[in-house]
Amino acid sequence: MRRTGVPEIVLANGKSAEHLVGILRALHRRGEGALVSRPTAVQLRRLRVEMRRGLPIRELAGGRVLRLLGPLRVRFTPGPIALLTAGTGDVAIAEEARAVLEELGIRTVTAYDVGVAGLHRLLRAVRRLERRRPRCYLVFAGREGALATVVAGLVRAPVVGVPVSIGYGRGGGGEAGLSAMLQSCAPLAVVNIDAAVPAALFAAHLLARRAPLRR
Amino acid sequence: MRRTGVPEIVLANGKSAEHLVGILRALHRRGEGALVSRPTAVQLRRLRVEMRRGLPIRELAGGRVLRLLGPLRVRFTPGPIALLTAGTGDVAIAEEARAVLEELGIRTVTAYDVGVAGLHRLLRAVRRLERRRPRCYLVFAGREGALATVVAGLVRAPVVGVPVSIGYGRGGGGEAGLSAMLQSCAPLAVVNIDAAVPAALFAAHLLARRAPLRR
Amino acid sequence: MRRTGVPEIVLANGKSAEHLVGILRALHRRGEGALVSRPTAVQLRRLRVEMRRGLPIRELAGGRVLRLLGPLRVRFTPGPIALLTAGTGDVAIAEEARAVLEELGIRTVTAYDVGVAGLHRLLRAVRRLERRRPRCYLVFAGREGALATVVAGLVRAPVVGVPVSIGYGRGGGGEAGLSAMLQSCAPLAVVNIDAAVPAALFAAHLLARRAPLRR
Amino acid sequence: MRRTGVPEIVLANGKSAEHLVGILRALHRRGEGALVSRPTAVQLRRLRVEMRRGLPIRELAGGRVLRLLGPLRVRFTPGPIALLTAGTGDVAIAEEARAVLEELGIRTVTAYDVGVAGLHRLLRAVRRLERRRPRCYLVFAGREGALATVVAGLVRAPVVGVPVSIGYGRGGGGEAGLSAMLQSCAPLAVVNIDAAVPAALFAAHLLARRAPLRR
Amino acid sequence: MRRTGVPEIVLANGKSAEHLVGILRALHRRGEGALVSRPTAVQLRRLRVEMRRGLPIRELAGGRVLRLLGPLRVRFTPGPIALLTAGTGDVAIAEEARAVLEELGIRTVTAYDVGVAGLHRLLRAVRRLERRRPRCYLVFAGREGALATVVAGLVRAPVVGVPVSIGYGRGGGGEAGLSAMLQSCAPLAVVNIDAAVPAALFAAHLLARRAPLRR
Amino acid sequence: MRRTGVPEIVLANGKSAEHLVGILRALHRRGEGALVSRPTAVQLRRLRVEMRRGLPIRELAGGRVLRLLGPLRVRFTPGPIALLTAGTGDVAIAEEARAVLEELGIRTVTAYDVGVAGLHRLLRAVRRLERRRPRCYLVFAGREGALATVVAGLVRAPVVGVPVSIGYGRGGGGEAGLSAMLQSCAPLAVVNIDAAVPAALFAAHLLARRAPLRR
Amino acid sequence: MRRTGVPEIVLANGKSAEHLVGILRALHRRGEGALVSRPTAVQLRRLRVEMRRGLPIRELAGGRVLRLLGPLRVRFTPGPIALLTAGTGDVAIAEEARAVLEELGIRTVTAYDVGVAGLHRLLRAVRRLERRRPRCYLVFAGREGALATVVAGLVRAPVVGVPVSIGYGRGGGGEAGLSAMLQSCAPLAVVNIDAAVPAALFAAHLLARRAPLRR
Amino acid sequence: MRRTGVPEIVLANGKSAEHLVGILRALHRRGEGALVSRPTAVQLRRLRVEMRRGLPIRELAGGRVLRLLGPLRVRFTPGPIALLTAGTGDVAIAEEARAVLEELGIRTVTAYDVGVAGLHRLLRAVRRLERRRPRCYLVFAGREGALATVVAGLVRAPVVGVPVSIGYGRGGGGEAGLSAMLQSCAPLAVVNIDAAVPAALFAAHLLARRAPLRR
Repeated sequence: MRRTGVPEIVLANGKSAEHLVGILRALHRRGEGALVSRPTAVQLRRLRVEMRRGLPIRELAGGRVLRLLGPLRVRFTPGPIALLTAGTGDVAIAEEARAVLEELGIRTVTAYDVGVAGLHRLLRAVRRLERRRPRCYLVFAGREGALATVVAGLVRAPVVGVPVSIGYGRGGGGEAGLSAMLQSCAPLAVVNIDAAVPAALFAAHLLARRAPLRR
Repeated sequence: MRRTGVPEIVLANGKSAEHLVGILRALHRRGEGALVSRPTAVQLRRLRVEMRRGLPIRELAGGRVLRLLGPLRVRFTPGPIALLTAGTGDVAIAEEARAVLEELGIRTVTAYDVGVAGLHRLLRAVRRLERRRPRCYLVFAGREGALATVVAGLVRAPVVGVPVSIGYGRGGGGEAGLSAMLQSCAPLAVVNIDAAVPAALFAAHLLARRAPLRR
Repeated sequence: MRRTGVPEIVLANGKSAEHLVGILRALHRRGEGALVSRPTAVQLRRLRVEMRRGLPIRELAGGRVLRLLGPLRVRFTPGPIALLTAGTGDVAIAEEARAVLEELGIRTVTAYDVGVAGLHRLLRAVRRLERRRPRCYLVFAGREGALATVVAGLVRAPVVGVPVSIGYGRGGGGEAGLSAMLQSCAPLAVVNIDAAVPAALFAAHLLARRAPLRR
Repeated sequence: MRRTGVPEIVLANGKSAEHLVGILRALHRRGEGALVSRPTAVQLRRLRVEMRRGLPIRELAGGRVLRLLGPLRVRFTPGPIALLTAGTGDVAIAEEARAVLEELGIRTVTAYDVGVAGLHRLLRAVRRLERRRPRCYLVFAGREGALATVVAGLVRAPVVGVPVSIGYGRGGGGEAGLSAMLQSCAPLAVVNIDAAVPAALFAAHLLARRAPLRR
Repeated sequence: MRRTGVPEIVLANGKSAEHLVGILRALHRRGEGALVSRPTAVQLRRLRVEMRRGLPIRELAGGRVLRLLGPLRVRFTPGPIALLTAGTGDVAIAEEARAVLEELGIRTVTAYDVGVAGLHRLLRAVRRLERRRPRCYLVFAGREGALATVVAGLVRAPVVGVPVSIGYGRGGGGEAGLSAMLQSCAPLAVVNIDAAVPAALFAAHLLARRAPLRR
Repeated sequence: MRRTGVPEIVLANGKSAEHLVGILRALHRRGEGALVSRPTAVQLRRLRVEMRRGLPIRELAGGRVLRLLGPLRVRFTPGPIALLTAGTGDVAIAEEARAVLEELGIRTVTAYDVGVAGLHRLLRAVRRLERRRPRCYLVFAGREGALATVVAGLVRAPVVGVPVSIGYGRGGGGEAGLSAMLQSCAPLAVVNIDAAVPAALFAAHLLARRAPLRR
Repeated sequence: MRRTGVPEIVLANGKSAEHLVGILRALHRRGEGALVSRPTAVQLRRLRVEMRRGLPIRELAGGRVLRLLGPLRVRFTPGPIALLTAGTGDVAIAEEARAVLEELGIRTVTAYDVGVAGLHRLLRAVRRLERRRPRCYLVFAGREGALATVVAGLVRAPVVGVPVSIGYGRGGGGEAGLSAMLQSCAPLAVVNIDAAVPAALFAAHLLARRAPLRR
Repeated sequence: MRRTGVPEIVLANGKSAEHLVGILRALHRRGEGALVSRPTAVQLRRLRVEMRRGLPIRELAGGRVLRLLGPLRVRFTPGPIALLTAGTGDVAIAEEARAVLEELGIRTVTAYDVGVAGLHRLLRAVRRLERRRPRCYLVFAGREGALATVVAGLVRAPVVGVPVSIGYGRGGGGEAGLSAMLQSCAPLAVVNIDAAVPAALFAAHLLARRAPLRR
């Protein structure tokens, strides 16, 4: 029923801890691996009990992504994908995407804390990344989100903007960044606020080795 | 100053007709071609006068995109890119993207009017497109935008959603479609409402033949 | 004063625990049964004390609906009503509706976790439900809410969409799903976000055995 | 591909006049009838040319709904459906729904201009309608939309609220009415602002004579 | 500096507990009384310490309003003012207004839990209140706020609507009620969501005995 | 059906010109007078034809209010009501209210163009108005709406704020003024944007001579 | 009543043409000059009649600002103020500010069409402007508004962002730019969308030669 | 990379306590001082441990601003800057700005709790501040934000409005104040809600002693 070439991603959001454990155990019994995005503190505590009982789970990106060990049934070309963040507050979200990409066997190159307030440092970082010829850029930026527009004006691969829920007041929580990226004068595509895992999967699709469509 | 590999796209929006003519004449004198997005009726009338005076402009997509003849200084791999629309009301926007892609030398494959209300017809259309192995899907959908999510659950290339400003009442004018695509349970990237040209350029970037970064 | 044929539904929201106890005791003294929607944790603790003192209350749907035992003074034709959910995170809300319907003597048929990302599984589920000839479908869907539109394109009974408050970022908390259902290209009716009990009562009205209007 | 039992409804919105003529001619050649919702002035002028050339179209509800003569391939039980409006400004929208229902062979009973400011007149109207035992109520109300809530507290059939785009200032254009109906303390279902045709089709589904599901 | 005829109302919101104590002590030293609106739990704990030390404060409306004993330097005609609530969840807010009015020496008449779902009960309550010839009605209503419109269509004194922050989903937290009251087809004036104290003061002004303007 | 003591106000908004003429003719035949608020240009043209045919209508406030001559069946105490505007752009809306009040036999006192940018001029105007001892103040203010708050801090009668749809950009069209008046630190009541007639009727209610409640 | 040092600015918005003429004639009779912001087409036509009759008015910024000749009673230090625009579509708004500043005797330096998509061109422009040591920067930017943030990271004078109502879709009409500037990671101050004249006056205040406060 | 003349301001928001400690230690090792805005309770606890270990940090404005001792590498003219607040609830935010300004060597003059409800007290305060000839006014106001407009109509220096997140209901949390300041009829510039530190830095820029632009 699932598309071939798509890894099993279990969204923890809205599931009870028991239900989540049940899904992961079933996958493990079938010999499959999986990724889990954004487990809550309650879910994480419950899963750690399971880990001690032998369910092979590894915590990635500070526990924001989990990896159920086992094959993911997907194959990708090796990339790389470039990840940039505007500030240090955006790094935790970017690391979610990096964890997913690397578990899928895709290499990443990163430049963190290179906001537009320090243009010359940003220009050096972009030159460094471009030498690695990334297939796609994921740009994580809170507040006004200007980094995505500036990067899209400098590089030659497609750029996906990921607004980050930093900032208070009007337009806070990532709202201004999302609107600004949608309005960008450069040809950006965007994903929702903090949507690191969807952004990583979108980028992975660019690198998918193709097989015939399953019904 | 511009990125190599990016075609010259002149946004007509907010420019006076005289100013737009001046830009196109200057490009033509330098021997360059260009694309113009969304000329207004006033701008179009003024440009037709110039065409009669010899400025080599071709109207595409029913006049929503203009092509100033001459080389575009970009090279792309041939694609193809797939374009789908949910209804017949979305076709005019999709044709903007198709005109831009084809002017850039990128092949397109299309399936128009294949909304989710007719699931079996949609499934046949997706099978037909998948046989062409498109590098990317652009899905144009007004109203609730469900087509983008359903397509992203069926195909194996990256999917970019383009909400179309169809529909009245709450969430009308493309707002519901944009929000729904941002919330999609499938890994979509999106562009702004009616943003056919940015979507086409984003897709073109996936196909860019790479050259060294210019300063 | 109340319409005949409408069960007594006590909305716990905004009432003090003492006040809620008082209402239920009064109903019980009058020999009437009732349903209570969404008691808070504080109210539930207080009511459990009453249960131990003999107030005959049963917890349904994981405590999200309570049933004060006793006659409900309503009669309905037996249905059935079909309930679908897009994901497992929508099930808790759907179970609220199911608990209310079954307490009213209406049969339900369900298909849970049949989102549009797995179209073929969804088609099988719809075929199974249609064989039961439901009088109405209640479709519970978080995030982009596409399931309600797709189901309304497949079935021959009226469809009521219930957006569920799943999802973060722009359009999160059920907002995108509500807007998308209002914009649906299929003839859906909708209720508010998470409004499982109003949806169940609306469906029950379709099945009401009619009696003369009371003043 | 379409559901059996659903009439052909052509949404004029977003289609060119030529395209609309093409659709209606094709249906007529196949011997089918259809309904057209909300033709624009331009489309209407173009269609009147076709009518003079023999395309059998009848204008309903002051031209807001068109009927392409010919069988609609649907069968319904006879109803009736009740329609109420709060003011005289809501009547044009209600008449769209009435035209669609009657073309589908469903009887309607109406009470127009019975807003809550004149409670006793409203009570008389509701008593009159209830004697007809309507299967469903469609309540059309602009401004604050209170009529839908009050009617749902009085009648014993399901009530669908249709907010109407009357009123200026904050909450104008039907926004306050839609929000109020979604928040109603009575179990209403709602459709989008001015969505008379979707409301009529939803009501018609309640009356559909059932046949087996088509693939 | 203050208008004569306006009682001293201290808004607790945003003040530190220490600062609030300081203000009340200073007023008490000057021999003045005052009202305090919406003390937080922290402020209340701190003030109770002061009460034990002799600061003469009385808790009203379940602690949502405090009265610093002492003269309020205002004189009003005796009213009465009528207060209605749609549900029992609105009573706590209405009681804030009642406490303020009665401390100002203004009589009140009330009808609580008389929502539009029980029209005949509401009509009886309005008749009872009208016999008292109230000078102004304050109508407290959560959710869709229809009660304010219905009351304004029945009574002959000015009606002020007070939306109450009851209700979840779109338009919840009082938003739908506020918009609906602003759109009301009856000549309502409104105050902000839960703004019981401003509503009470507005009503009190109607009853103020007038004295010359102070500079 | 109508409340005694309420004048007949016909809202032109959303009615066809023919329908409006029909209403006014019927009232005239019954020997009643009425007020019409905000006729459109089309309605006004149609009504002028009727006036030439003898329907006794007078245009007030530059045609924004019409008076059908004949008794209004209401009696009020003579006021006065004070009207202030912040700028000259708010005067047209204020004049609507003044026309209604004066047709109801209520005296008005006005101070126009006394915005807070000229505080000393405003203070002089308020002193002048206060000497007339108005029973209520209606404050009309576009843009940021600060005048209503400042006036409510200076006068001793109740103040009703009327936001006016002046101003462009964020918060334009009266939105900022409405929000600011709802948040006012002074006890204001408000009506919707440009709602001069509801404001006038609310003020008139303060002055109504009371008679027994009609059923 | 006005502050000394503030020029007479007449806001044309919301005034009738006759009223505007009256104000300007009165100022001219008193021997004073003035500026008029944003006359409408109707007002402009009417004023041109007056000009032919001798009222000394000069049209500036393409008729978006008018200058009534005569002294402005203000004195400023000479500046300069720097004005930048992101695109050519922002120039008309910037020219409004420039016209006002120059009429006040303040020098301006400009760099137009220096958006962040052409970073190296922007850096050259900023270096050129900085050599003139401007006292303040006004940055005009439509769409995502990133230019204001980037400039504020490069220059050493205070920067005021002016969002321009360019762009369609979500965040269009200047909304995204305004939110982004409010969220900027650089210490920007902002004015409302298209508010060129308020921005110019704010900048002029920085240069005001001070005199004692008038009562 | 940073602009000369800009102090080091570390935004604590979104950083882990460890990361924040790392940044401050590195600055201290390099012999630089810094300011930290809005540390969270967790960060503050962690930093107090560091203080006891010898990291020279001083808590300002009740712990909302921290000062890492050491030179700030900036020089300003001495000001002063005037700070006003409308209520006592706005003082905590104003004190953040004052702490930053004074650490930068800029003098401040203040008038707190001078809202427009007490106009004569406000006028006295403004006269007192004007005698100090401030170079800029920062006006902190919650709720409806009218103080900023009134002050800008009275003083002769530029005024920056800082909306404060006081107030509940529609427009609460500073939203109404921000919209009102953007709509102000006086030439205000504004910063985001509660953005005291950006406002202080903007004001500081007005006083910067200029040096050549660094690359």
